[in-house]
Amino acid sequence: MIRVAINGFGTIGKRVADAVAAQPDMEIVGVSKTRPSGEAFIANQRKYPLFIADIDKKQAFDAAGIEVAGDIPQMLQLCDIVVDATPGGIGAENRALYELYKVKAIWQGGEGHDVAGFSFNSSCNYEDAIGRDFVRVVSCNTTGLCRIIHAVDKVFGVEKVRATMVRRGSDPGGIKNGPIDAVVLNPVTIPSHHGPDVNTVLPGLDIVTMAMIVPTTFMHMHVLQMELKSDATREEILDMIKKHSRIGLVKKATGITSTAELKELASDMGRPRCDLWESCVYEGSVSVLNNRELFLFQAIHQEADVVVENVDAIRAMMGTVRNGEDSVQITNEALGFEPI
Amino acid sequence: MIRVAINGFGTIGKRVADAVAAQPDMEIVGVSKTRPSGEAFIANQRKYPLFIADIDKKQAFDAAGIEVAGDIPQMLQLCDIVVDATPGGIGAENRALYELYKVKAIWQGGEGHDVAGFSFNSSCNYEDAIGRDFVRVVSCNTTGLCRIIHAVDKVFGVEKVRATMVRRGSDPGGIKNGPIDAVVLNPVTIPSHHGPDVNTVLPGLDIVTMAMIVPTTFMHMHVLQMELKSDATREEILDMIKKHSRIGLVKKATGITSTAELKELASDMGRPRCDLWESCVYEGSVSVLNNRELFLFQAIHQEADVVVENVDAIRAMMGTVRNGEDSVQITNEALGFEPI
Amino acid sequence: MIRVAINGFGTIGKRVADAVAAQPDMEIVGVSKTRPSGEAFIANQRKYPLFIADIDKKQAFDAAGIEVAGDIPQMLQLCDIVVDATPGGIGAENRALYELYKVKAIWQGGEGHDVAGFSFNSSCNYEDAIGRDFVRVVSCNTTGLCRIIHAVDKVFGVEKVRATMVRRGSDPGGIKNGPIDAVVLNPVTIPSHHGPDVNTVLPGLDIVTMAMIVPTTFMHMHVLQMELKSDATREEILDMIKKHSRIGLVKKATGITSTAELKELASDMGRPRCDLWESCVYEGSVSVLNNRELFLFQAIHQEADVVVENVDAIRAMMGTVRNGEDSVQITNEALGFEPI
Amino acid sequence: MIRVAINGFGTIGKRVADAVAAQPDMEIVGVSKTRPSGEAFIANQRKYPLFIADIDKKQAFDAAGIEVAGDIPQMLQLCDIVVDATPGGIGAENRALYELYKVKAIWQGGEGHDVAGFSFNSSCNYEDAIGRDFVRVVSCNTTGLCRIIHAVDKVFGVEKVRATMVRRGSDPGGIKNGPIDAVVLNPVTIPSHHGPDVNTVLPGLDIVTMAMIVPTTFMHMHVLQMELKSDATREEILDMIKKHSRIGLVKKATGITSTAELKELASDMGRPRCDLWESCVYEGSVSVLNNRELFLFQAIHQEADVVVENVDAIRAMMGTVRNGEDSVQITNEALGFEPI
Repeated sequence: MIRVAINGFGTIGKRVADAVAAQPDMEIVGVSKTRPSGEAFIANQRKYPLFIADIDKKQAFDAAGIEVAGDIPQMLQLCDIVVDATPGGIGAENRALYELYKVKAIWQGGEGHDVAGFSFNSSCNYEDAIGRDFVRVVSCNTTGLCRIIHAVDKVFGVEKVRATMVRRGSDPGGIKNGPIDAVVLNPVTIPSHHGPDVNTVLPGLDIVTMAMIVPTTFMHMHVLQMELKSDATREEILDMIKKHSRIGLVKKATGITSTAELKELASDMGRPRCDLWESCVYEGSVSVLNNRELFLFQAIHQEADVVVENVDAIRAMMGTVRNGEDSVQITNEALGFEPI
Repeated sequence: MIRVAINGFGTIGKRVADAVAAQPDMEIVGVSKTRPSGEAFIANQRKYPLFIADIDKKQAFDAAGIEVAGDIPQMLQLCDIVVDATPGGIGAENRALYELYKVKAIWQGGEGHDVAGFSFNSSCNYEDAIGRDFVRVVSCNTTGLCRIIHAVDKVFGVEKVRATMVRRGSDPGGIKNGPIDAVVLNPVTIPSHHGPDVNTVLPGLDIVTMAMIVPTTFMHMHVLQMELKSDATREEILDMIKKHSRIGLVKKATGITSTAELKELASDMGRPRCDLWESCVYEGSVSVLNNRELFLFQAIHQEADVVVENVDAIRAMMGTVRNGEDSVQITNEALGFEPI
Repeated sequence: MIRVAINGFGTIGKRVADAVAAQPDMEIVGVSKTRPSGEAFIANQRKYPLFIADIDKKQAFDAAGIEVAGDIPQMLQLCDIVVDATPGGIGAENRALYELYKVKAIWQGGEGHDVAGFSFNSSCNYEDAIGRDFVRVVSCNTTGLCRIIHAVDKVFGVEKVRATMVRRGSDPGGIKNGPIDAVVLNPVTIPSHHGPDVNTVLPGLDIVTMAMIVPTTFMHMHVLQMELKSDATREEILDMIKKHSRIGLVKKATGITSTAELKELASDMGRPRCDLWESCVYEGSVSVLNNRELFLFQAIHQEADVVVENVDAIRAMMGTVRNGEDSVQITNEALGFEPI
Repeated sequence: MIRVAINGFGTIGKRVADAVAAQPDMEIVGVSKTRPSGEAFIANQRKYPLFIADIDKKQAFDAAGIEVAGDIPQMLQLCDIVVDATPGGIGAENRALYELYKVKAIWQGGEGHDVAGFSFNSSCNYEDAIGRDFVRVVSCNTTGLCRIIHAVDKVFGVEKVRATMVRRGSDPGGIKNGPIDAVVLNPVTIPSHHGPDVNTVLPGLDIVTMAMIVPTTFMHMHVLQMELKSDATREEILDMIKKHSRIGLVKKATGITSTAELKELASDMGRPRCDLWESCVYEGSVSVLNNRELFLFQAIHQEADVVVENVDAIRAMMGTVRNGEDSVQITNEALGFEPI
């Protein structure tokens, strides 16, 4: 059993913890939290040993009736690998600690490529991660872009990509961030940083991205335009998507044309936390112009798509499964990941 | 086994179906849908026989790959009792059909009191529903008001109630209804209809309600002020709530002060569809002035709180469980309804 | 003085009325309304004679204290030209009436091209509208696309256009339409109808458009990508925009990166109703790749940009000003249209 | 002419500046800003001398083409009185500076009562402010509560007040603050601070307030319940409101039931920045139960209602107009403040 610790039991961390706990070859040895909260109660309920950043705050946890197992150094002594899911920018500061305790570490896309020197996506470069000590799982948006671009590229060749990301303003549980009634260009400059971030996984790709934020809480919407190197039909693209283990196809017959209806479907399917680990391509949108220009809309669940990538990254780094497709299959199966 | 049919497999209907299917003494013999949709796929997935309103539309279901078991009259012949969860106003038109097929029927709060001549709430008047053929489960807001008012009244006596309902504009899966950036007085006149609706369950109560709609999708927020007939302390009120099987207390130590954070907690707890069947009183808000005036905020999950009431109403009408508290306990247990 | 009637004193109609009333060569002889409303009070306040669709409803207006001048046929007898600003789809039904009363007529973009057989944009085809009896002013989105594409095409040549429209869900004064928390693909199919609509003004252009709706009330956001026939620099594009009488440049030094901040600026500038008649290109976004690929974000005020186009269309159709640039200048000056 | 400086040319400051500039007995000698922005451009456009907090930042203003007149001490030397409209909490730190330059000062409701030792509302305690050096104009919500409560109290006597404030999450021009899809109890505890704040103007009043935040940008909505000391009828209350110079009545015949439609009306009326300086009571909501219990909804424009109060406070403190009603009339008239 691979012993996994989760540093930061928040939006991403708690999901990775549950996904890890569901795997046949992994176990959770600890999760961390900085202060009492609903999530701390959940850690106790799930029986994940809860470690806290500042042991001086133990009293506050005690007062709330939340059991504490120790501090973060203690947690690090128990694990083979730590998944750092602390807020963006803080993760990099933890690297020295992980080195000190000689644990392998995974960071999220909120950190830069340099934190680990290697940026990961299960479908694109699993094998290159085998045995590594430090890996960065790219952000939800970059993950969503990499999956589809790489898949199309393998079969048809991708000449260039132009993509617009319409991003959610806040996670569903957030109450501070807006906007309430605005489209915010973020950044106002073109291109956005997403293109270069895709290049950390897919070097050399001609990609220009633009991004904005809108007042929604669930899923980013990607508008994708790709020029292909060889001819393709709509049917070939749909077939390719149907076979992909991490891209789902939102069936036209469901009548679903939005993010909200898609969440409702995930909820009805019984997905834990309504999570959509797969990129969700709208069947009705897939369109090929003159056999060489592909257009599509895909929705990316910002809280979920990287969760399964973290699980695969653990296996690659520990070297226990040497083939990406195998790991993806184990991960998906353990989660009961049925197609939408 | 009580054989239950669900007429209208939508927001409420699909939840009641799942809750019924989870009970030890009930089974789903059919659910109905008018056209192909994500929910129709789910009915197939759950193996609920799917009946359709207009058999001429069977081809459309066939084309989408959705299995159809028959039409609604066929469904009614299979059941002891039907839960009508069709859109508000349509349910009343179905009464003649239910009489024709001699099935007991439950309507939702979108219909008026007269549709059934009896308005139901598990905590308030379970015993009065025993053996009835027709029952109306009151709306989500009325259910939320009845639970807390009746509970306070039993112990301290309620002189009068003044309540404001800040209602969600659309269900989470809806994409048509607004408002996007407005508070809408609904109705602009005072009082709103909610007070009289509470009186269908709690006759004679002095209650004035006001209501508005805001741009949110999850839960109504109630501002409650009650004048008491005898002295009460904050602690006594909190104790009373903690003991109530259908009212939850949002612990102060969770740091939760909103509807969004509460949904996140329900999601983390693994509640199906993030459903909060209980009224959710914010511990931090409970306040007693001069021992006689009680104030509190409670959030009501519009999609969920009536679901468990429907299940209890079935038992009362079938007469198989003669005591309300017993039914509530069976229902809650079958759902794995752990306190928030 | 050109005598103008406005059929439909709503979101667009009331703005066209005020803009017409401000022109030196035009006057408002009547506006119409179907029922008492805040806008009907405003018509009285502005001293626009108010005609009503159904004279039987006069009593309701009387009761509200709103003065009524007559019915719509009476209004049509007073005017040279009518601007039809009735809700989309209704305008076409009015054509017979306008023919009967022998008045020239302008429709809005909610109607199809065929309603008038000619689709108008001041910057693109003013001269072709001279003397026409029937003209359709294209929709706010199409107007915004035509302005910038035509301007770029004149100087650099446009090879092809790929554009995404992120549309507001409701006008600011609306309370019914959503979505509240969703991105809605509208349509889910690619391409959207906007490209063909641009072709009614700019025939032969290679353009593919995609569209979605988000929970905002003010302005559509366009993501524009254009391949050019000849080399261009960012500075040349900025210069071209600065000289355009209907395209504004949102200065980088304002720090504005959103629609909301832009509305605030319009409000601070004292623009009536915060109206932005010009397309608003974000200076910071204008970007040219390899001298041949132009990217930019522009915001389009859905309630306002077509208003000035309607005024110009009136002059063209009446034949009183034979040059488009002259009319644009008269219109802008009369409105005190200072650059943002 | 009273020489007025505005420290902080933001949401409130820019409005007070325009209102002051419109008065026959006042002039703007300077406004301040900390960094280049759209509002700084507006100050230049309006020809308000622009002073900056940190003169070292002058270069940034120069680069943006914004003219700077000097620093804040220089501004203070030019004025008789300064209106501090800096962000909440910062104003108090400026008191020493105002004392040093021996200028009278007005703070906003974001500061505590102690900053000035006197809390002001034109309708309630104008005369008590005469000649004072330091005055705090209470917040928008408190202003709205004070106006109506004081007006009712004068005629009928107010026994007690229970009020719920449903507050907007962000100003219209804001893009950072949420919530996007949540009702946030703010505070979760009952009562909120608004009741005690009303008591700084109306001491001894029995008032309990509750407050929450919703995802809207325009106006707070107040749900007001008042128990009266003497009998009142609905008509008497409506008459009283119609006569009040700072409370408007949203006529039922307009069909307006929301904040958004009200903003549309203000916009149509040509109000600068769509500002509603008056409290807006919905005619349809005014309701009297048993002659002794008054209910009503009122909407409060958070950016505007205190603006006119600041203008009156200036006159009171300078002692140039000794009667509150006279000042209110001068202020209103100068703004062209016509009833909604």
